[in-house]
Amino acid sequence: MARITIQKIADEVGLSKYAVSRALSGKSGVSEATRERVNDAADRLGYRKPRQTVRLLGVVFDDSDYANSELHMQIQNGIQSDAQRLGFGLRMRATRQASEIEALAEECDGLLIVGAQSEDGMRRAYAQGKPVVRSGWLQPLEQVDQVGGTDHESGSAVAHFLLDRGHRNIVYVHGDPRFRGRMERLYGLREVCEPRDDVILHDLVLDNGSELSDAIDRLTKQDENITAFFCAHDGLALTVISELLRRGYKIPSDCSVIGFGDYYAAQQISPTMTTIRVPGIEIGRMAAWLLGQRINNPDFPSCPLRIHVPCQIIERGSSGTAARS
Amino acid sequence: MARITIQKIADEVGLSKYAVSRALSGKSGVSEATRERVNDAADRLGYRKPRQTVRLLGVVFDDSDYANSELHMQIQNGIQSDAQRLGFGLRMRATRQASEIEALAEECDGLLIVGAQSEDGMRRAYAQGKPVVRSGWLQPLEQVDQVGGTDHESGSAVAHFLLDRGHRNIVYVHGDPRFRGRMERLYGLREVCEPRDDVILHDLVLDNGSELSDAIDRLTKQDENITAFFCAHDGLALTVISELLRRGYKIPSDCSVIGFGDYYAAQQISPTMTTIRVPGIEIGRMAAWLLGQRINNPDFPSCPLRIHVPCQIIERGSSGTAARS
Repeated sequence: MARITIQKIADEVGLSKYAVSRALSGKSGVSEATRERVNDAADRLGYRKPRQTVRLLGVVFDDSDYANSELHMQIQNGIQSDAQRLGFGLRMRATRQASEIEALAEECDGLLIVGAQSEDGMRRAYAQGKPVVRSGWLQPLEQVDQVGGTDHESGSAVAHFLLDRGHRNIVYVHGDPRFRGRMERLYGLREVCEPRDDVILHDLVLDNGSELSDAIDRLTKQDENITAFFCAHDGLALTVISELLRRGYKIPSDCSVIGFGDYYAAQQISPTMTTIRVPGIEIGRMAAWLLGQRINNPDFPSCPLRIHVPCQIIERGSSGTAARS
Repeated sequence: MARITIQKIADEVGLSKYAVSRALSGKSGVSEATRERVNDAADRLGYRKPRQTVRLLGVVFDDSDYANSELHMQIQNGIQSDAQRLGFGLRMRATRQASEIEALAEECDGLLIVGAQSEDGMRRAYAQGKPVVRSGWLQPLEQVDQVGGTDHESGSAVAHFLLDRGHRNIVYVHGDPRFRGRMERLYGLREVCEPRDDVILHDLVLDNGSELSDAIDRLTKQDENITAFFCAHDGLALTVISELLRRGYKIPSDCSVIGFGDYYAAQQISPTMTTIRVPGIEIGRMAAWLLGQRINNPDFPSCPLRIHVPCQIIERGSSGTAARS
């Protein structure tokens, strides 16, 4: 069989060799429709991309964190879209096994680690000496690249949002305090609420085994003037909304509830949920892009970076002005 | 006078036209020494760069904030080095006048605003519809590009640093609580200290007019077991170190003092100061680079970004293990 050249594909689709080459290498300058047409023709003709030119990004996901599945899917989609656009190949693996992470780091030109990993896994990833970008929590001032959302700011923004609507008695509901994002949101809330004498902020921590239902009973008995709940993730907000509805509260006229994540279910519950959109796709895009710079661009500043994509408040039906007490 | 061409400069310095062109346009691929030689020859021959190709970055500094002069100088140097490397022209202005900011925004292709500005100044800067990158505080979740250091992380890192050295009774000293960076550092400290029953964290706020000297007297009388001070900036740390020395404290054996900034004076005081280095040059480089992407690169992800360069703890003589109490 004759070798399939770029010229042959160009003849087939009626484009210049230049355009075909840009399309095949995932570079800019051709539309997505053209790129698809070129890729289809290349597949049909049996064209093989020259192997040596494709740099590989390795991506590791924490496979045990189902609460954040949706965010991880968005990040994955963002990584894919930019890796393709930038002409990188991708090897993705959901694992917490140190040996698998090591094997991936060996195979690839750089590694992107999403979510938590064991110390051993991290150590073996770094040991390869290749660029590593993290999307997840680092040690304070750890000199490593990190890409993510904005937790502290989100807490402060929710505080302003609620204060602007007259709320003065607010509950922050969260579970495991080892999750740093949840704590940063709490500290963002506190930064705005604590300097104000007229604002009460309750910190409702659900320890392992304690029931949210009981905790809400205790808290609302202890303080009858609560008008708003900010929940550390949308899942908790679903529980809080339904528990309040079961007790006969009207939402939002008796009580506002705000989530965090903007997952699919936030638009399914009634009333629909006011929440914080975490820009997962953009986080994924920036992560792939930053790893690409580390691999390919010697002119890019070499200092480690935190690149955080600001979240957004999505206002829906579960929040409103505070009920007068 | 005959027109000076790239070829003429190339003949003069004995390089290719390509190399001369790269050197003149500030692009990569030539050494700094070569670039200097080419620029010298171009100046000597009277070469004028074609005007239309140079894009302009406008940079505005807050001209009233002397406490951060050194950081602003570093940021300025970082901006200059990357603007030159990337082939941008620069227009810098230290001002808080809205009309001057507006004029600069009109003249340039994008604006970089370092430090605080009036609302009117910001409004007029944005009104031009050109890219704006900020290095300074935003509203929480404001959808604008921001480049800076890492305040919350720095507070947490100092907490771990002190706890690791046996300190259990720590003072955070700061002035005006309207400065958000100082508050974020406090909340970073608290995130690490508050969950621990065995740690006392004092929050020493110096209101306008209150004397640090009196405040230290009051605090050390009230609690004799204090072993460490973390100061919101190096200037405060200079005062705390000298006030403690005047009272006969030995530093670090009686008391550790940590600053923030790593300004020049931190190495002049005796004992030399343990402090947090804020990477001003790198912040400036990333700011120029990001603004360059916004102006020139249509493929760059369009979502607003926070790009924070992690600070570093610089351990010197003013900190040590806690005195036994």
